[in-house]
Amino acid sequence: MSLEMDKPYFRLISEPILENPIFVQGLPGFGNVGKIAANLLMKFCNAKPFAELYSPSFPDYVSVSTDGVCALPRYEFFAAPMEKSDFIIMTGDTQPSFDDVLAHYEVCSEILNFLQKYKCSLFITMGGVPMTEEKAQVYVAATSPQLATEFMEKGAVLYIKGRIMGATGLMLGLAKERGLNGICLLGSTNGFQADRGAGFTVFKFLMKALGNEVKEGL
Amino acid sequence: MSLEMDKPYFRLISEPILENPIFVQGLPGFGNVGKIAANLLMKFCNAKPFAELYSPSFPDYVSVSTDGVCALPRYEFFAAPMEKSDFIIMTGDTQPSFDDVLAHYEVCSEILNFLQKYKCSLFITMGGVPMTEEKAQVYVAATSPQLATEFMEKGAVLYIKGRIMGATGLMLGLAKERGLNGICLLGSTNGFQADRGAGFTVFKFLMKALGNEVKEGL
Amino acid sequence: MSLEMDKPYFRLISEPILENPIFVQGLPGFGNVGKIAANLLMKFCNAKPFAELYSPSFPDYVSVSTDGVCALPRYEFFAAPMEKSDFIIMTGDTQPSFDDVLAHYEVCSEILNFLQKYKCSLFITMGGVPMTEEKAQVYVAATSPQLATEFMEKGAVLYIKGRIMGATGLMLGLAKERGLNGICLLGSTNGFQADRGAGFTVFKFLMKALGNEVKEGL
Amino acid sequence: MSLEMDKPYFRLISEPILENPIFVQGLPGFGNVGKIAANLLMKFCNAKPFAELYSPSFPDYVSVSTDGVCALPRYEFFAAPMEKSDFIIMTGDTQPSFDDVLAHYEVCSEILNFLQKYKCSLFITMGGVPMTEEKAQVYVAATSPQLATEFMEKGAVLYIKGRIMGATGLMLGLAKERGLNGICLLGSTNGFQADRGAGFTVFKFLMKALGNEVKEGL
Repeated sequence: MSLEMDKPYFRLISEPILENPIFVQGLPGFGNVGKIAANLLMKFCNAKPFAELYSPSFPDYVSVSTDGVCALPRYEFFAAPMEKSDFIIMTGDTQPSFDDVLAHYEVCSEILNFLQKYKCSLFITMGGVPMTEEKAQVYVAATSPQLATEFMEKGAVLYIKGRIMGATGLMLGLAKERGLNGICLLGSTNGFQADRGAGFTVFKFLMKALGNEVKEGL
Repeated sequence: MSLEMDKPYFRLISEPILENPIFVQGLPGFGNVGKIAANLLMKFCNAKPFAELYSPSFPDYVSVSTDGVCALPRYEFFAAPMEKSDFIIMTGDTQPSFDDVLAHYEVCSEILNFLQKYKCSLFITMGGVPMTEEKAQVYVAATSPQLATEFMEKGAVLYIKGRIMGATGLMLGLAKERGLNGICLLGSTNGFQADRGAGFTVFKFLMKALGNEVKEGL
Repeated sequence: MSLEMDKPYFRLISEPILENPIFVQGLPGFGNVGKIAANLLMKFCNAKPFAELYSPSFPDYVSVSTDGVCALPRYEFFAAPMEKSDFIIMTGDTQPSFDDVLAHYEVCSEILNFLQKYKCSLFITMGGVPMTEEKAQVYVAATSPQLATEFMEKGAVLYIKGRIMGATGLMLGLAKERGLNGICLLGSTNGFQADRGAGFTVFKFLMKALGNEVKEGL
Repeated sequence: MSLEMDKPYFRLISEPILENPIFVQGLPGFGNVGKIAANLLMKFCNAKPFAELYSPSFPDYVSVSTDGVCALPRYEFFAAPMEKSDFIIMTGDTQPSFDDVLAHYEVCSEILNFLQKYKCSLFITMGGVPMTEEKAQVYVAATSPQLATEFMEKGAVLYIKGRIMGATGLMLGLAKERGLNGICLLGSTNGFQADRGAGFTVFKFLMKALGNEVKEGL
């Protein structure tokens, strides 16, 4: 196998059978809210990995696992066929290098290209938003006013405070440019440390909004 | 629609009918003078948006409007058929990432390519220039001594202080390399904060120089 | 000869005859451990230079030798036919520019492409790892649990502390993605200055692990 | 004319008739020594401009001259047919953006490509080198020991202090890789301010070494 690494590269592990799945993305960021929520969703759905994304714009190191085996930074895609709606869940342990804006656009575009064949019905990005207030909230922004309203009616607060940074915002913006439907769910967090509570709040809201029941004990 | 985002990308909303329009550009910068002047011109002309430019070198965030809908950073093109002379006005809420010089050249070149079919008679860039003096002035630089002189005779001060930074200078330099006619109008400003006065001074000078009458109450 | 320098460029000095050689890499880094170990190996094996790699992502200077002759930054490849196992040894006096992550991936991928025709049986990268402990140790990470275990049994400590930075980690990660076998040997060092002791420890361990005898007096 | 500006771009003003000219380069740098020496040489030879180089990696501004006309940053090529040996002299008012190493390699390579048709007999780069000593010296490094020795015999000191930074070093290194003959002359300077004395010393040495007589009053 030749792996040139001059652009983002997908490795397909298996071909999942999914019906108009909902794409859900949670990457590292503020309070790690998005990634924590994605991990909870994967656990809840018993999602199975089916693809990996490598990119020359990811940081230049390898992680070593507890058995001494190295791995390049990567995004991982998990498939979860469910009763109500199938899911494709993407998470990762990195984002493109700080300030490499071109790479950010390229990686997000390649992900949308890759997802095209799965005919996703909805693109959901999850992240955190720094807030000083006490109350745990889930904020929503969307690719259309209708979608924003729909999720407000389900309990989210409209996010009108300005910008959504990094892949959490960019995926939504690029999805909109392609005429796709998407929302961004942002959990309020008061710090940069991993905020498991905020991650759980986003996950629970998402499940409720999509009609799934989540038991508190998860 | 496939939107690869590996280079600047234009989305045409409608095809305006214009006769050798004057191109006028005002982007964020010193005192936001250029952008403020462009906004005043758009209001004065009742200009209509007809195209958008996206670029992977623009910052990696989305802005969220008051109805919760996200949008990628972009430049917007407005058309204004007028009695004296038609206008194409370009503004935006960003410039390519700090220090990404290659992107700056590429974006400006793509804009000139895009404008080619409209057969613009003149390319005008507007910006601010930090000055300690009190008096509001409009400085001019041009692609030829004749053009510089022409606008000096209309009341501008010749800009001989050195450099014009960013897209305000680059568009003019690249226009000159293509054999096009252009001028740069710089409003003196004493700060980095939005300077509405300087923006209005530049707008008013431009209108007068082009033979349009502006009422003070705008 | 035309040397475009828009991408990494190999110059072949001679074509070595080697049988499934072991590739060993030691570049500048923590305590210069990898480079020192590579130099000791080259001396031990009486290795001969057979190729050079230039890259536009290497720093923009030339080094001048004692006879006043300039040379671009480069990686050098040395061949050593040996009784037990042949070696290809790579060293250099630089790494791609700080933070140019894309270049790091490209250079490492081009090296793996170049090495393909020599059908290397094993890829070994050597480096240093900052440690506060006194005892000189050699840590190992690998492309598979079997390889990691094999070198642990020969006396290395499993490296499970997280990440391996730069080309030392990246070459291993990219080799793994191509289905190649590789290990990384990291010598513990307590500083950023050149640590000849740590370099020798890594070299000696490598020789012993591969079944070569090293006399202390080298 | 279409000027895409996605890579370095040459504009030919006229086609000079030169016989195996010597290429001499002086760009901004330490003490501005190289550029000052190049300007003195152009004046001495009554050199005429025949080509310009633009690059998207040059800084994103325009300079405005005293008649208010803007110009993009550029390198300029001057031709000087002389009795003893013809010259092509290159100077400029910039170098590629700080830290854009890839651009540095690309611009220098394009210059060597451009010069190929003029069949230059020798490539000379001039610059400054920071020295604490009082005495004005000219240091030399070369593409071969023979050339270094030849210019030492003419009075230059062998430069064995390490590195030559930026285009002054890179042009020499890339010329060597193409099998071309070149030298670098470095004038000792004790500051970063423009050092006209050091520039004159380098110019005078160069003229003497090439067999031209320079009167002190220049």
